[in-house]
Amino acid sequence: MRWRVRIVLADAGRATTVEHALRGLGMWTRRHSAHGHGGDHVAFAVTPTSTPVPATAVRGVDGVVAVYDADSLHPLVDAMPRTCTLRGRVLGVGEAPALFAGPCSVESEEQIHRVAAAVARHGAVALRGGAWKPRTSPRGFQGHGTPALGWLVDAARAHGLAVVTEVVAERDVDAVAAVVDVLQVGARTMHSGALLRAVGAAHRPVLLKRAFAATLEEWLLAGEALLLHGAPVVLFCERGVRGPDNGMRNVLDVGAVAVLAHAHGLPVVVDPSHAAGRRDVVVPLAMAGLAAGACGVVIEVHDRPAEALSDAPQALDPEALAPLGLRRQ
Amino acid sequence: MRWRVRIVLADAGRATTVEHALRGLGMWTRRHSAHGHGGDHVAFAVTPTSTPVPATAVRGVDGVVAVYDADSLHPLVDAMPRTCTLRGRVLGVGEAPALFAGPCSVESEEQIHRVAAAVARHGAVALRGGAWKPRTSPRGFQGHGTPALGWLVDAARAHGLAVVTEVVAERDVDAVAAVVDVLQVGARTMHSGALLRAVGAAHRPVLLKRAFAATLEEWLLAGEALLLHGAPVVLFCERGVRGPDNGMRNVLDVGAVAVLAHAHGLPVVVDPSHAAGRRDVVVPLAMAGLAAGACGVVIEVHDRPAEALSDAPQALDPEALAPLGLRRQ
Amino acid sequence: MRWRVRIVLADAGRATTVEHALRGLGMWTRRHSAHGHGGDHVAFAVTPTSTPVPATAVRGVDGVVAVYDADSLHPLVDAMPRTCTLRGRVLGVGEAPALFAGPCSVESEEQIHRVAAAVARHGAVALRGGAWKPRTSPRGFQGHGTPALGWLVDAARAHGLAVVTEVVAERDVDAVAAVVDVLQVGARTMHSGALLRAVGAAHRPVLLKRAFAATLEEWLLAGEALLLHGAPVVLFCERGVRGPDNGMRNVLDVGAVAVLAHAHGLPVVVDPSHAAGRRDVVVPLAMAGLAAGACGVVIEVHDRPAEALSDAPQALDPEALAPLGLRRQ
Amino acid sequence: MRWRVRIVLADAGRATTVEHALRGLGMWTRRHSAHGHGGDHVAFAVTPTSTPVPATAVRGVDGVVAVYDADSLHPLVDAMPRTCTLRGRVLGVGEAPALFAGPCSVESEEQIHRVAAAVARHGAVALRGGAWKPRTSPRGFQGHGTPALGWLVDAARAHGLAVVTEVVAERDVDAVAAVVDVLQVGARTMHSGALLRAVGAAHRPVLLKRAFAATLEEWLLAGEALLLHGAPVVLFCERGVRGPDNGMRNVLDVGAVAVLAHAHGLPVVVDPSHAAGRRDVVVPLAMAGLAAGACGVVIEVHDRPAEALSDAPQALDPEALAPLGLRRQ
Repeated sequence: MRWRVRIVLADAGRATTVEHALRGLGMWTRRHSAHGHGGDHVAFAVTPTSTPVPATAVRGVDGVVAVYDADSLHPLVDAMPRTCTLRGRVLGVGEAPALFAGPCSVESEEQIHRVAAAVARHGAVALRGGAWKPRTSPRGFQGHGTPALGWLVDAARAHGLAVVTEVVAERDVDAVAAVVDVLQVGARTMHSGALLRAVGAAHRPVLLKRAFAATLEEWLLAGEALLLHGAPVVLFCERGVRGPDNGMRNVLDVGAVAVLAHAHGLPVVVDPSHAAGRRDVVVPLAMAGLAAGACGVVIEVHDRPAEALSDAPQALDPEALAPLGLRRQ
Repeated sequence: MRWRVRIVLADAGRATTVEHALRGLGMWTRRHSAHGHGGDHVAFAVTPTSTPVPATAVRGVDGVVAVYDADSLHPLVDAMPRTCTLRGRVLGVGEAPALFAGPCSVESEEQIHRVAAAVARHGAVALRGGAWKPRTSPRGFQGHGTPALGWLVDAARAHGLAVVTEVVAERDVDAVAAVVDVLQVGARTMHSGALLRAVGAAHRPVLLKRAFAATLEEWLLAGEALLLHGAPVVLFCERGVRGPDNGMRNVLDVGAVAVLAHAHGLPVVVDPSHAAGRRDVVVPLAMAGLAAGACGVVIEVHDRPAEALSDAPQALDPEALAPLGLRRQ
Repeated sequence: MRWRVRIVLADAGRATTVEHALRGLGMWTRRHSAHGHGGDHVAFAVTPTSTPVPATAVRGVDGVVAVYDADSLHPLVDAMPRTCTLRGRVLGVGEAPALFAGPCSVESEEQIHRVAAAVARHGAVALRGGAWKPRTSPRGFQGHGTPALGWLVDAARAHGLAVVTEVVAERDVDAVAAVVDVLQVGARTMHSGALLRAVGAAHRPVLLKRAFAATLEEWLLAGEALLLHGAPVVLFCERGVRGPDNGMRNVLDVGAVAVLAHAHGLPVVVDPSHAAGRRDVVVPLAMAGLAAGACGVVIEVHDRPAEALSDAPQALDPEALAPLGLRRQ
Repeated sequence: MRWRVRIVLADAGRATTVEHALRGLGMWTRRHSAHGHGGDHVAFAVTPTSTPVPATAVRGVDGVVAVYDADSLHPLVDAMPRTCTLRGRVLGVGEAPALFAGPCSVESEEQIHRVAAAVARHGAVALRGGAWKPRTSPRGFQGHGTPALGWLVDAARAHGLAVVTEVVAERDVDAVAAVVDVLQVGARTMHSGALLRAVGAAHRPVLLKRAFAATLEEWLLAGEALLLHGAPVVLFCERGVRGPDNGMRNVLDVGAVAVLAHAHGLPVVVDPSHAAGRRDVVVPLAMAGLAAGACGVVIEVHDRPAEALSDAPQALDPEALAPLGLRRQ
């Protein structure tokens, strides 16, 4: 049984022992002790991102008087398959880590073919690349759109790679879903219910990036929206949250990765490129993400990194992927 | 002349005096002193949200050697009208503060008429209310949609109020733009380039909420996107950013209000309801926003606050608006 | 009765009505509904910074089954006097707002006398100024120390002002406490238990700044430590928290001011100078803080602002205080 | 040569190429282009945490016109030894990773001996344990003080371990420095200049934890203060910063680890226990920190984790260290 909110009532005299036992089971609690009503009890509210533990196991803890559980707010995420299969390759906790690689934006037919060949050679499972690019400035390069989508798919197919690409507008969903393996929802639109609804309705696996300052619960609920509207499975993608050094880099939240992967068994990948913001720490961050429990990494790669039309500073030369030692199968 | 990025070179011997003079003019600087090349100069990078000061005035500061200016990334915001007129009422810095009020969501034809009457009586210029509601949980109440839009417009017209409502999906923009005075872009979608493009193309004034963790620059660039695609004017709406007490309330950034209003002369309004998250501090926060320089407040009001279908805890009874002392004209 | 943690159990069928009633009373809740044990109940955990409401009032809400309360973690703050008297002037919610003003650092005997005269003329109740300055860089100006303390006290006495100054080291506490009216604990040391203990033991009123990213609860607990070790009263001072535009300015948390002042009745002052980081928005932020419920403002003033040895860009000329309209008595 | 602030001037026509070349060298830049004075140049401000690159290499980039460098604000950190030797074991980038382990607080003579034996068996280099504990609540367990220090040192010596312990008060520094190998400055006091001065003056290696919301620059400047006052070497310890899920856990900033270790070559360790806040993700976070470039991990270990007097939920049983595979030498 999966659950989201839980209150545990315990004997007041054993409260500390019970609290420690709960935390030892992976349950984050807030104590709400009591001396008002119903005997001397202590109540613990268990936070939603705790390890799921069956109510029977909790009732078995010495000193526990009662356990209240509520329906989960994200039952579909709780019941979702723990793995996702892409062109025969299984992604999930405990599986060999997968590499999603490609340019920030698909710049030309030749470029994407060159990159596809290179990343396939370095063990990528999927080719990623943007046909439409969400940018902070409305005058930044917005991507080549529909033609780029065609080039991307052709290049991937030529090299036996799956295709992942971001959809930024509701009206593009169907055209993209018809040709790619995984639809990506970006950090800037994770909170857009209308887009989540449209993407879910395409009945495709979704790679869901976490928004800039989203809580774990908001991220899980965005996943729930996708599943509710029809997506068969969601790959959660951690790409860094805002922190004290805003403006320079994001903070790759490896703790979120560990909680989703180890406490909930969910498939989660990391995007070290956006977290780093610069080339020289992308590989260490990728390794940190995998060490924390990610089942894959999404890396921006360009065959001529310094000439990339967008996100150039964080783009890696394909050769730089070698230390990761990832393999296609 | 408006500008966005500026470097000031100064005599090394007078650097401290120059720096103080610049900061006294309202310019935030980062010092990049120098002992490498071209004489003993010190460079100051001026941050984008500093007070705009003409280059000639900066060159006039004793000790300044050169001033480098760049094109603004948001020239349309810089050149935008400093006021916005709604049904004959002028909004802007220095004008009498305006009240936008109404329920979080339009719940029924009767409800919205009752609320419209009440807020008109308490000095509101515009009726606000959601026909489509963006929610964190996909199973939360999502609004009554098209029928609610009709009820909202009728109620506003019956009481001589302007209408403001949020558009959450690209496909709804035209229908909404045809009947309302101001289109609202919400905090969850401020980063959605596709929605900004669609809303801008409707050629209507836009109330643009700041995203949960947006920098001032990102907020201004979202405004630039709206203007670039056709919006005639943007009202910037501060509604609180994430802070140390996440999960309970947002931090109403009155400093952002003061910088936009006083340093840039832009029309900015505050939404104290979402910042507070609870009824008992909404009015103090509204007053704080006005004191900081806002030209208006957007407040969630419900005639039976405890029964509101969404955001009930922060909804005010219309009578609670009285201490604000805002008037229609 | 004051309390800190509270669980409210309610009939499942009336949960929404109860929740709304609680929030309408100013109580932030987290819902922990239940379908496991003991009938169909719903539990609400009330967060610590909610408005204190007597348990009897909560039990009186229709549908409430039981209320569990715990001992407060900060009973001394809860029981603390709601006002603080400085040289005959009463500070507290509902009292006329007070002005604390003076230079960031005490630079010379002449300077502090000139500033004291000026701020007394502009209605200040207390002279503030640093004898020891905590700085980010260990090579920044650290203050003139003991001689500066003497100059500060003499200047204040000459103009009938109370004295407020920061203590940065345990070993300085006694010497400072012997001569000033209010000891200040700075944002950088709010988390230092050893300093809080030493300052509390001096049995003086304390102005306690909130740390850069402290939660309300951490701030209240730092106040509790001061009172526990002997301080008679604590003035809480909000000076801005870190936000999305880190590096340029802090976010003055007027919501924290409103909650402490209006929900808890505590005396709270604001420091708009550090929140703003630049001169041109200090006065609007001061007015915002007062509008939110602060009973006073702490402003950095210098008679030659551009020449200040520290924090020059945010220092105001004394004449700039006039629009605040604050008076000594 | 080490530097802190740098401005690069480039030909306007080649600005994009130059920018990409700089970022490819690991330099984060902010662009300040120019059309005012001195020809059509573009200025790039290089942020302080960029990879240090010799000025000659930057001048060699095609299109660069001039490079301005300033004195570093933390020259002693820049010049500090890149390794630290503890009882014969060398810590630093590229060395075998070291384990610092022990209880949050030293609870009894027997406990610390049992834990010392266990962590020595599992490859620890140093025994950590608190004699004085900084706590959020002034009524929390504050540690056993001086007696605990004696037990800690005896236990470490008995098992050939180095000793690391936190100093929370200036007055304790000398007594602690006389008997331990490494003095720890905690997250709560990283900003306390008085404590940094006292600890530095003890002429001991220091383990410096990063404050809850400190920028990289503030952290480096705290290290500079320690070195300036006499510390021979500083081990920087990342323990998680505040993020969107405040209140539950901190965000272990592996990007900060990667930048300090890989771009600056500094010895940095991670504390996964405080970042996680719960036992079940401590080991994955430790591995993530090492993968990012940390030269060691600091882990809270207790022989009876559920009974720990402080931080029980995050305490590991010594057996849980096995998967880390760390060895004494």
